[in-house]
Amino acid sequence: MTEDLPNPALLPSGLADLLPPEAAREADMVEAMLAVFVGQGYERVKPPLLEFEDSLLAGSGAAVADQTFRLMDPDSHRMMGLRADITPQVARIAATRLADVPRPLRLSYSGQVLRIHGSQLAPERQVPQAGIELIGVDCAEADAEVALIATAALAEVGITAPSLDITLPTMAPALLDAAGVHGDLRRKLARALDRKDAAAVRELATMAGPPAIGLPALLTAAGPADRALAALQEADLPPAARAIADNAAAIVAVIRARAPELHITLDPVEFRGLQYHVGVAFTLYGPGTAGELARGGRYRSGDEAATGMTLYLDAVRRAAPVPPEAPRVFIPLGADPAAAAGLRAQGFVTVAALTPADTPQRLRCGHILRGNSAAPIEESV
Amino acid sequence: MTEDLPNPALLPSGLADLLPPEAAREADMVEAMLAVFVGQGYERVKPPLLEFEDSLLAGSGAAVADQTFRLMDPDSHRMMGLRADITPQVARIAATRLADVPRPLRLSYSGQVLRIHGSQLAPERQVPQAGIELIGVDCAEADAEVALIATAALAEVGITAPSLDITLPTMAPALLDAAGVHGDLRRKLARALDRKDAAAVRELATMAGPPAIGLPALLTAAGPADRALAALQEADLPPAARAIADNAAAIVAVIRARAPELHITLDPVEFRGLQYHVGVAFTLYGPGTAGELARGGRYRSGDEAATGMTLYLDAVRRAAPVPPEAPRVFIPLGADPAAAAGLRAQGFVTVAALTPADTPQRLRCGHILRGNSAAPIEESV
Repeated sequence: MTEDLPNPALLPSGLADLLPPEAAREADMVEAMLAVFVGQGYERVKPPLLEFEDSLLAGSGAAVADQTFRLMDPDSHRMMGLRADITPQVARIAATRLADVPRPLRLSYSGQVLRIHGSQLAPERQVPQAGIELIGVDCAEADAEVALIATAALAEVGITAPSLDITLPTMAPALLDAAGVHGDLRRKLARALDRKDAAAVRELATMAGPPAIGLPALLTAAGPADRALAALQEADLPPAARAIADNAAAIVAVIRARAPELHITLDPVEFRGLQYHVGVAFTLYGPGTAGELARGGRYRSGDEAATGMTLYLDAVRRAAPVPPEAPRVFIPLGADPAAAAGLRAQGFVTVAALTPADTPQRLRCGHILRGNSAAPIEESV
Repeated sequence: MTEDLPNPALLPSGLADLLPPEAAREADMVEAMLAVFVGQGYERVKPPLLEFEDSLLAGSGAAVADQTFRLMDPDSHRMMGLRADITPQVARIAATRLADVPRPLRLSYSGQVLRIHGSQLAPERQVPQAGIELIGVDCAEADAEVALIATAALAEVGITAPSLDITLPTMAPALLDAAGVHGDLRRKLARALDRKDAAAVRELATMAGPPAIGLPALLTAAGPADRALAALQEADLPPAARAIADNAAAIVAVIRARAPELHITLDPVEFRGLQYHVGVAFTLYGPGTAGELARGGRYRSGDEAATGMTLYLDAVRRAAPVPPEAPRVFIPLGADPAAAAGLRAQGFVTVAALTPADTPQRLRCGHILRGNSAAPIEESV
């Protein structure tokens, strides 16, 4: 190694080591959340990190095509992609190897995704994800189930007061379609809605005429779900938009019945979010400044109706309470291995001396094995 | 999708989907084995899948340089590699971010590695691994600890009768050094040893003279550890080779004391294996035809003495007994969610009907919720 080499600690931007104790915390949280998924019938699948870009970027995968690292496969001489999203892989598995399994099909996954570029707000280029997909059923109960299970998974790791934000990404397009708004005016309205620029929305919607003229009222209706649903109920909506509103009301009703304490907001004309959503879209926010913990919603999985949620594990880890670490017990040279095993069965971490130079302090142990028990160092040394 | 496109089920060679129930089994096994590591003080780290090739291929990483996928980082315009081994990453972490933690440093990890080419015997190009590294200590107790913990991890997933194969990759070079054998004769002898061609070894060792003349005897000594150690004890070894033999005997003695039932073999002049081993090398074989389940041994971690073991999770999964799957219970429409939660707490998987079309048969349930219990379908429907 010469001094010309870069600092070996320097990783590419957006790529990081997870160190103790965070790496163990993340793994423990993933397994706790997956146990919630598996317990409700979401069977685990594990697609590979790399696949041919034809299949990786098909369907909903097209949304992340420009974020996908590409590699030449020296074996087939075809291009492969490093996955930037797992949902398209689950869709591929459902449509091919699990095509003959009766629907609805419930699948879960966890794994790493990679992205070419981080953003200023989210610089990470390797992102651990876990999630569920419910494939082959289109009803309010299905959307409610995935939102509730994602919420239960967060509760399992100690995040008990998230907020569920529901958006209806097809609502604004349905109103603009019904009003026959196209071209430049439609683009301007979309941009104004995206910026939540009420004045511009009002002006442009007036130009667009009914039923787009209802957009300003729906824009200001965003907030607690009950108020937003009431505004949708009162609005004069064309049939396609009315169906979207009724579906949202039905989903909220199922969620309310099962989780009355969950804080739910609804933004009827928001249409940010993953581009492939065809019904409700969900975002789960953590308490305080924790930000987005999970996203999901209704989409097309190949030719099938589907709904799902993805949990962002970095954000979940930062939002979750930190459990106490297991106390470390120093095992002196020559101690009985069975005594150490007994302490591990009680939840202690045992750290064995290997040479006379190993001391409890060096091995960062607060306890020491005495007889068959762990004695705190303060009292015994 | 046109018919010209390849079958979307077709993945690149050596890359595969893990489906239910195998994906869950693998994840459960990984966490069970990592719990063994963590319980004995091996703190978990999680390095990224991608890093700059300078750091990824430094030190022991050089051994997998020709198996490492490379990618240009569009951010830094430097070359990155997709890791083909995790040990060099752990060495980097130990030498940099954990440089100030007192030694010995015990670290564990699990994750995917990727390789450009599979082999005929091992076609997989994405390989899940888990392992431990014990850094900053060089003694028989340390080598014995990693072998014993890897064995305990296998036992935790039900593989209770592995065989530990110990090789001494520095023994043959030490004998050849002491005999002053270089050049063509040394290459021929190395090849003959690698092929276990006793006749060629005998002929070439005679040409090489003492102490290389002891090689044929050591070649035939390979087998159960006690017999091999006895042969080493009787052999006339130069000092460097004697130290290697004594170290092997000390390691076997520690392992024997802790795991008297473990089957141990020793091959004194085998020097296959990961190129970077500087002391003993370990291979754990499964019972029957299960093959190699883990490899490891003593190496240099940056400037530090180190020893470690890597478990090959595909092989471990194939060798481990299959636990019974949790029974699936059908939850009828409108059933009490608390009753379903109660069944999950008892270890059942609950699968909720979402529409009247959902039946226990369609949802592959052998049980149905009746009151607060799970009734087998045969008896109740």
